[in-house]
Amino acid sequence: MRYLKKFLIIVVSVLFTLNLSAQSTPEADEDAFFIRRIFDTALTQGSCYDWLDYLTSRIGGRLSGSPQAAAAVEYTRQMLDSLQLDTVWLQPCQVPHWVRGEPEVVRIAESPMGTVKLNALALGNSVGSGEVGISAPVIEVKSLEEVERLGRSQIEGKIVFYNRPFDPTQLNTFAAYGGAVDQRGLGASRASKLGALAVLVRSMTNRSDDIPHTGALRYEEGVKPIPAVAVSTNDADLLSRLLKQGPVKVYLRTTCHFLKEETSYNVIGEIYGSEKPEELILVGGHLDSWDVGTGAHDDGAGCVHAMEVLHLLRRLDYRPKRTIRCVLFMNEENGLRGARTYWQQSNDQAEYHLAAIESDRGGFTPRGFTVDGHEEVFIDKFKQVIAWLPLLEPYGLGLSKGGSGADIGGLKDQKGLLFGFEPDSQRYFDYHHTPIDGFDVVNKRELELGAASIASLVYLLDKYGLD
Amino acid sequence: MRYLKKFLIIVVSVLFTLNLSAQSTPEADEDAFFIRRIFDTALTQGSCYDWLDYLTSRIGGRLSGSPQAAAAVEYTRQMLDSLQLDTVWLQPCQVPHWVRGEPEVVRIAESPMGTVKLNALALGNSVGSGEVGISAPVIEVKSLEEVERLGRSQIEGKIVFYNRPFDPTQLNTFAAYGGAVDQRGLGASRASKLGALAVLVRSMTNRSDDIPHTGALRYEEGVKPIPAVAVSTNDADLLSRLLKQGPVKVYLRTTCHFLKEETSYNVIGEIYGSEKPEELILVGGHLDSWDVGTGAHDDGAGCVHAMEVLHLLRRLDYRPKRTIRCVLFMNEENGLRGARTYWQQSNDQAEYHLAAIESDRGGFTPRGFTVDGHEEVFIDKFKQVIAWLPLLEPYGLGLSKGGSGADIGGLKDQKGLLFGFEPDSQRYFDYHHTPIDGFDVVNKRELELGAASIASLVYLLDKYGLD
Repeated sequence: MRYLKKFLIIVVSVLFTLNLSAQSTPEADEDAFFIRRIFDTALTQGSCYDWLDYLTSRIGGRLSGSPQAAAAVEYTRQMLDSLQLDTVWLQPCQVPHWVRGEPEVVRIAESPMGTVKLNALALGNSVGSGEVGISAPVIEVKSLEEVERLGRSQIEGKIVFYNRPFDPTQLNTFAAYGGAVDQRGLGASRASKLGALAVLVRSMTNRSDDIPHTGALRYEEGVKPIPAVAVSTNDADLLSRLLKQGPVKVYLRTTCHFLKEETSYNVIGEIYGSEKPEELILVGGHLDSWDVGTGAHDDGAGCVHAMEVLHLLRRLDYRPKRTIRCVLFMNEENGLRGARTYWQQSNDQAEYHLAAIESDRGGFTPRGFTVDGHEEVFIDKFKQVIAWLPLLEPYGLGLSKGGSGADIGGLKDQKGLLFGFEPDSQRYFDYHHTPIDGFDVVNKRELELGAASIASLVYLLDKYGLD
Repeated sequence: MRYLKKFLIIVVSVLFTLNLSAQSTPEADEDAFFIRRIFDTALTQGSCYDWLDYLTSRIGGRLSGSPQAAAAVEYTRQMLDSLQLDTVWLQPCQVPHWVRGEPEVVRIAESPMGTVKLNALALGNSVGSGEVGISAPVIEVKSLEEVERLGRSQIEGKIVFYNRPFDPTQLNTFAAYGGAVDQRGLGASRASKLGALAVLVRSMTNRSDDIPHTGALRYEEGVKPIPAVAVSTNDADLLSRLLKQGPVKVYLRTTCHFLKEETSYNVIGEIYGSEKPEELILVGGHLDSWDVGTGAHDDGAGCVHAMEVLHLLRRLDYRPKRTIRCVLFMNEENGLRGARTYWQQSNDQAEYHLAAIESDRGGFTPRGFTVDGHEEVFIDKFKQVIAWLPLLEPYGLGLSKGGSGADIGGLKDQKGLLFGFEPDSQRYFDYHHTPIDGFDVVNKRELELGAASIASLVYLLDKYGLD
């Protein structure tokens, strides 16, 4: 089916193109020329790599409510200010302030091979274990459904160990992530309902290594919150092997907790449209990151992509017809408060986002965009965008139907198109939510090509609009 | 023009596909299904990553004539033996044995900012400087033509510093490499003809860093060989800045030299064809590497790609109609002796390579194949291959006209098709010919996807042949 769909997209694109190019070759040449200039400028006069260096190496991890998140707001506001935009402003929002506390202690306390220290990180939003920690027998499961099936008799008083790995045959690693992440998000709630004391979750990655991956959980309504930690894939495999040999008890101690909420901000910069300023084209990423690592691919890359789009258009003296707005969202990782605030204010003011593009899949070599939209308008508008494929394909960019980004999903009812920037996905989950997501694992050219790709799409959206 | 060409390829592919799929949908479904199995198997039961670990981390750099090159011959022969092929054999060839000698000493000896040690590596095949080294004034040039233009009066008695950088606007970094590498290959010869004492060459990379990149030079007939070293891009920039401020003298001492030639081998394994065994489909890489680093991307990746193709076909119980031959060539880096031996014996025996595919652009995410061939047959055969695009595109694979690989170029007169496996190029020249081209910079999934991509093309070539 995927194969057929891809094929049809190619056919459609060619038919559209034959039509387009027959009618307007000088136009297409002008577009090709301008897009070439965007790429040349990004690769020779870009700022995104230096911005990312500052944001990651000098400011660091930017968890919502942290001093570093505040510094990131200030830094990116200053950088946007330096671009001579028409306006730069901060949109306040209240954010949760979760802190990890003391380093997690997680170890196998009893097993056929004795005690073993595990590489672990508390999941974001998790409660702590209390000062003395928790020690209990471990039961391994592969899914939320299995917990349900096992029932209270098997689960009560245990530490539930979720160990369903990524499906390695998924070509796009985000599909593998999507197939596993319910364990991290809801595993604690479902185990708690049946009397579990805590949960361990296999890290969300394809790799076999010793690096634990944090990430958010959500406690469902009315559930008693229990502690949850991620363990590295190597340690998950070890634990699973030991459980086949005999009973295993794990001890864990975490002191993570919430402090009081803080006021933080979405950082916003705009170039006003000269003809249709009321039609908005949004480019964005999220400014917050996890506390471990420095959030280089997730999502420092997306922020500097969005900033670079405005920078490139300015560098090229491009005067947009429509308003181009860069939004650096706060609190995507553990609350989405910045995005919700943005959606509400935008809808209250009856704004129209002709298009919104989010970059939140890392700073790798661009492969294209996923496109989403309200069902009433999607097919018609998607067809218009598909017609631009011949301009994008020389840069290795495709277009496919698919989800856009967490921060822009709430704009769908405005009936524009929502785009997710799609770079190569193979390495993303090597780094995602870990201590090694740092500046050194971002390649300068790959990052720059991403900014140029997004700017090219913005140029076409601005020039032609979407009927 | 590139844009137009890409567009035409898409049109052609769709027209062919409409035709193909109208006539034989079950066939196409069978092909799609088998290719999916190839990818699934590569991603779950592949051996290439472990083989590469051994070849790089345990054997190491494999310069022709070195003990490590001999170990690599032995190791890969054993691994091919373990695959239950129809035959595995070693094809002897004589190879040069160049050694680097003592660590290079290269420093700015006089300049407006005093003395500075430079990060440098002798170029492969270079002569040494003699025990006492060479000290001389430096003159910076941007091209071989500039040296010609300056003439003997400016060049004699000097150290010539070639400093034309990569063109960063080239999307494919191999195009940038192609635009700069004449300085490394022929810079010493052209400077020597006009009386230069030695040359410095800016490292062949897009990056700004402190890592020198070695690589081969060639002394032209009748030229007095002079020493040549690569300096890191940061040091090249420094040297250039200093030269703008005043005279600069550099001291260099290298002790590199040739030992006597050694007998080495191409390592070859085959699965015999069941219907047309005389039609050969070759998959190959080169087994030798530079002495610095461990040749992981260049070209350990290509070797294990080629081996994995046979492994995957065996795993899937595929009985080829045609003979599938894996060739690990010796001495690509500084002589091409293995390839030349192979071509001669193949032509002498009137073999017919229906197709040859080389992987020598690293183990990154696959983007497709470049295709080359004898002008008498190219267009006809290329059209047949283009018809397979709908089967390859779901895996992100395209096909474009372009050079194949150094080790297979000499098979062109057999009038089959020559393919170069084309992975994403952005990071290749971060590592190429440097101490950091090691196992840790290869991603497991990216490597596996490459092997699966090549195996898929081999499957189609074997099943359908080329008329």
